[in-house]
Parts: sequence; C-alpha cells; structure tokens
Amino acid sequence: MTRLRAPLDLSLNLATVRRQWGLRDAVAAAARHGFAGVAPWREAVQEAGVAEAARVFTDSGLRVTGYCRGGLFAAAGREKLQDAIDDNRRMIDEAAAIGAEQIVVIGGGLPPGSRDLPAARALFLEGLAAVLPHARACRVPLALEPLHPMYAADRGCVTTLKEMLDIADALGNDGLGVAVDTYHVWWDPELAAQLARAGRRIIAHHICDWLVPTKHLLTDRGMMGDGVIDFPAIRAMIEAAGYGGIQEVEIFSEDWWSRPGDAVLATAVERFRTVCGTR
Amino acid sequence: MTRLRAPLDLSLNLATVRRQWGLRDAVAAAARHGFAGVAPWREAVQEAGVAEAARVFTDSGLRVTGYCRGGLFAAAGREKLQDAIDDNRRMIDEAAAIGAEQIVVIGGGLPPGSRDLPAARALFLEGLAAVLPHARACRVPLALEPLHPMYAADRGCVTTLKEMLDIADALGNDGLGVAVDTYHVWWDPELAAQLARAGRRIIAHHICDWLVPTKHLLTDRGMMGDGVIDFPAIRAMIEAAGYGGIQEVEIFSEDWWSRPGDAVLATAVERFRTVCGTR
Repeated sequence: MTRLRAPLDLSLNLATVRRQWGLRDAVAAAARHGFAGVAPWREAVQEAGVAEAARVFTDSGLRVTGYCRGGLFAAAGREKLQDAIDDNRRMIDEAAAIGAEQIVVIGGGLPPGSRDLPAARALFLEGLAAVLPHARACRVPLALEPLHPMYAADRGCVTTLKEMLDIADALGNDGLGVAVDTYHVWWDPELAAQLARAGRRIIAHHICDWLVPTKHLLTDRGMMGDGVIDFPAIRAMIEAAGYGGIQEVEIFSEDWWSRPGDAVLATAVERFRTVCGTR
Repeated sequence: MTRLRAPLDLSLNLATVRRQWGLRDAVAAAARHGFAGVAPWREAVQEAGVAEAARVFTDSGLRVTGYCRGGLFAAAGREKLQDAIDDNRRMIDEAAAIGAEQIVVIGGGLPPGSRDLPAARALFLEGLAAVLPHARACRVPLALEPLHPMYAADRGCVTTLKEMLDIADALGNDGLGVAVDTYHVWWDPELAAQLARAGRRIIAHHICDWLVPTKHLLTDRGMMGDGVIDFPAIRAMIEAAGYGGIQEVEIFSEDWWSRPGDAVLATAVERFRTVCGTR
C-alpha cells in the first residue's frame, strides 16, 4: 500500500499550471492545496522581477525546490558559448536571490545546422565546467537532468542518467547532482543500475506519466496514474539509493492546461497520495 | 565526398510507399528506380498470398532483404506467449518461402494493463529463445532491432543496441544479428561502442532521418538529409564494425505517403547517393 505523508511532500512545478495562473496566483494555489514547495520557471520570475518573485515565495512559506532551467550550452553553438555561460551565471544569482534550492540543468539541443551530437555533448560539459565555480560559490547546486531521447535534437543532447553521472564524475561532483524525472528516464534499461550508482547525488525527483498513445512529443505528458510508468518501483529505487526527499510534479499537457487550475492541483495531490509512494 | 556505387546498394522497405502501391506495383517501381532489393511487410505478403508474393519477388530479380516484422512476444502478455511463438514460427516459414534474407524482430510493447517493462523484456527473451531453433533450422536469421525509446510502451520494449546484443549473447548468437536503424539509434551515447561490439552481428542497416520538429511519434519520420542524423558518421562506424552491405530505406511519413510514389523513390535514391555514404 502507498504510504501517506503529512505534510504533503510534494512540490509543484509551475509549468504544470502555466496557462491558468501567473506567478503569484500559482504560488497561492499551491499553498492552498497543501504543496510544500514550488519550482518556478525563469521567464515567470523575470517577468515578475526577481525581488518581487522572492517576496512572493517568502510570503507563501513554501520551499522553492528548483529553478527552471539552466544549461543549454550547446544550443546556440560554440560562438555563443560565452553568452550561455554568462547567462547561466546570472541565473545562479537569481536562484540565490529567490532562495531556490537548486537549478535544473539540461543539455540543450544541437547548434543550428549541426548534426554532431557528440560535439554538442562536449560543449555542454565545457559550459558546465565554466559555471560550476560560481554555482559552488553561491551554494546553488546544479541538478543535471537527462531528457528523453526524443528531445536529443532540440532540447537535451544529454539523454541518460549514465551520461549525466559521468559528467558529474568528470567535474568532481561537488556542487552537482542529478534530477530524475520519471517521464525522461522510465524507459532506460540501465535505470536501476544508474540510480544505485547515483546514490546521494540524486537531488530531485520529478514525476509525470507517459501516456499511450502519446499524441505530441512535448505537450501530451500525463498525470500520474494515467499512463504506464511504474511510480512505486522507481520511487523505491530512488529511496534505496539514498534520496527520500520531496517529489515535484511537472506536467506539460494541452489537456491539463485546458482545465481549471484547482482541479489540476487537486488531482495531482490525490494521485501523488495514491500512485507515487512506495508500495 | 560520398562514394557512389553501381549498382545501387539500396533496398526499399515497402512501408515507405505503402499508401501509393500494392505489393506487385511497389516491387516493380523499386526495380524501375534501380533498387537492389525490397523489404516487404507481412500483411502485404499474406494479402497477396505467400506463393504469389514469392513469384513477384523472384520475377523482379530483386533481393528480399528483410521480412517485417516478428518478435512482439510481450505485447499480448504471458497467457498469449505461446500464440506469439507459434505465429513467429509461421512467419519464419513464410520468410523461407519468399526467400527473405532475414526477419526483422522487435520487442513489442507492454502487455495490456502492465507497467512492468523489465517483465516485458524478459518475456521477449523467452519468446525469442523458443523460436530460435526453428529460425536456425530454416536458415532465416533474426535481425533484432532496438526501437527508439519513445516506442518503449507500445512497440518496442527493447530500446538499445546494448540490450539486443546482450540478448544475442545470452542466446548464443547463432542465427541472430542486429538491425541498426538510424532513426532508432542515432541519439544513443553508447552507439559507437555498441556498434564496435556488434561487429559482424550487424546484418541490417536501415536509414531514415529525424526531423526537427517531429510532429508525430510514428508518422513524421524524415527523408535522409532533411533532418539531423549524421548518416556518414554512422555508416562509417557500421563499416568499421564489419558490415559493408546493403542499406534499406524505411520512412513512415504522412508527408511522403501523400506524394507520388515515383517522386518518393527518385528522392530516396538521390539522397542515398548524396547523403548516406561515408565521407
């Protein structure tokens, strides 16, 4: 049976309700539904202003479990690498200012016109190495998130936990961890082995289901329980590896974006309680 | 520069023009455009009748480079495993009857209602072990094809070359090989290592491009050169591993299905010559 937890050990990634609410209303809704934290996206924080966003989070009493999303060092090509590095450093400052517990970092896609995935991965490593000292100095851990292979070309050239852990190893691990999103990793035949290897480097556990059929590569992600992902099995592996912390629900979905925000959050909370614990 | 080859070392997977032509016309078109072979799907062969299909292929003078597609042992669940095994044995007989050089074998999706991907993979191995003696007796090699991870739930629970090679190792390799489809494997960070490991077990090289954006998970695959896959790099790895054989173009695409068949084949031939050789 699923274990119930009180208070709710669940954070709301604000992209889940991005069409329903602006920053302040979304945070208030998260608090109202009993979430323990939120994870904002940079666009929304910058639109509100960093100082104002920080006030919203502080006033809510909620944790800021993550700040989305950094990295993407390869996406604009080598000639724009320094810009990406500078931008990531600014993002680290913003994360510190809003009290974010970590920054979610993704590989980014191929540079325009490129077909060289290994080169993109090398550029990601190079950019990451350049920003890491600033992240360490600001005490903002970078949560390296592998994305599903179907995003390799245009969002995340780094697609597996193994690669992200290899990168963390290469950079000495200090200030780095991995974000495990069920949607991105559930298919991986190496999942159990790589989660065990990750151990306490797991610093984020995102939840989202894989629907059958999936009608769109980006915006047809599923509410937990509506798809085929075995959440209890993955949670058990993550806990066995040493991470017993908060989960974060993040669903990109035209379907859920079209529903009333309170219905989305009530459903997410109910599914978290009934679907996402260990058995 | 791309090396040109004469005669054209290219086979046509008939799914590429499945909406334009029936079996006989598609085979005639392939011969007319200079293809050296075709790879038919089972439905079309059964519809024509196996004996009649065999005559069509023999009369054409073309090779039958593959017969699509077997495996799928997990998709109907354990209680239907014996049915799947029996059906695969019949398919081996059909392959022998039409002179197919190999059968393309895929994992198949999860059983109905299941969320247990490791169990589906175990069922695939079990079914494969059961049909392998018949394949060996009939001298019809089974080409194990990993599918892109986005098909893990509903088409191919085995998603990486590493897994397929592990399976081939577990079953002794005799009568088994792997089919490498660029569309399914291009993202894999282990691609170079696993192709080198595969060596002469590579018995099929399928070509198809990954479009950005990809608008549909199944039917928005790309003509070579229209997407982001580095065909020369992958071909070089495959040749270095020991496979210098025929390539097979297989494109599922609403776009290309909507065009005149002769235009599709002319384009495929032109792209094969200009995009798909080693540099």
